[in-house]
Amino acid sequence: MTAAAPASTAAIAQELVSLCRAGRNLDAVARLYSPKIVSVEPVGGETMPAEVNGIDAVRGKNEWWFSNNEVHSAEVNGPFVGEGQFAVHYTFETTFKPTGQRAQMTEMALYTVKDGKIVREQFFYHMPTA
Amino acid sequence: MTAAAPASTAAIAQELVSLCRAGRNLDAVARLYSPKIVSVEPVGGETMPAEVNGIDAVRGKNEWWFSNNEVHSAEVNGPFVGEGQFAVHYTFETTFKPTGQRAQMTEMALYTVKDGKIVREQFFYHMPTA
Repeated sequence: MTAAAPASTAAIAQELVSLCRAGRNLDAVARLYSPKIVSVEPVGGETMPAEVNGIDAVRGKNEWWFSNNEVHSAEVNGPFVGEGQFAVHYTFETTFKPTGQRAQMTEMALYTVKDGKIVREQFFYHMPTA
Repeated sequence: MTAAAPASTAAIAQELVSLCRAGRNLDAVARLYSPKIVSVEPVGGETMPAEVNGIDAVRGKNEWWFSNNEVHSAEVNGPFVGEGQFAVHYTFETTFKPTGQRAQMTEMALYTVKDGKIVREQFFYHMPTA
């Protein structure tokens, strides 16, 4: 790899997982995400549409999540690496601060990499989200 | 690798994906699944519990699904390979025969490999399943 070559999918996957294991999710967004990132949830909510476009909106979504959830534990399993895409399996134990409701959730995220940046993240849940 | 060594996670992942792309999902169960396979859905239904144990029950679950769904298209994206686990991203366009309802669904499956066989599969959905 020359100095100018974009980072490989596997390298980006490892860096994302390392940062998330350290609780540095916002650093991962800043370092690894494309300005044109598209973030897709299964369903939208009252305060958040299902699809969010652009680095500012995705940073805002992450900041909202961390400010509204107390994270008791976060397990980051993976990465699982394919061609131009990789997946990560997350398990969170959280309390949603506005309601005080504690819950465990487990999900998979599928990331698409282009030119050394994450351009799309799509989330898949193990719990019904309706 | 010696002849006695179990197949690697990557090799099993590739074989599963190849068989599923050919519509040979039941062959994949027969060839690659452990007799003690555990299959985990997000939620149970009227006819199927969320967790199914053992190769006979998992074969039955697959046969039920294929006999009750007309598959218009099946996209198999991956595999995404990790250490002792791999993921596959599926997108199906199906009609559920009992109701005639046509739907697109996309899901990820996380597979766990032990001694050269798939011992666990867990499904994550992009649509609410409730």
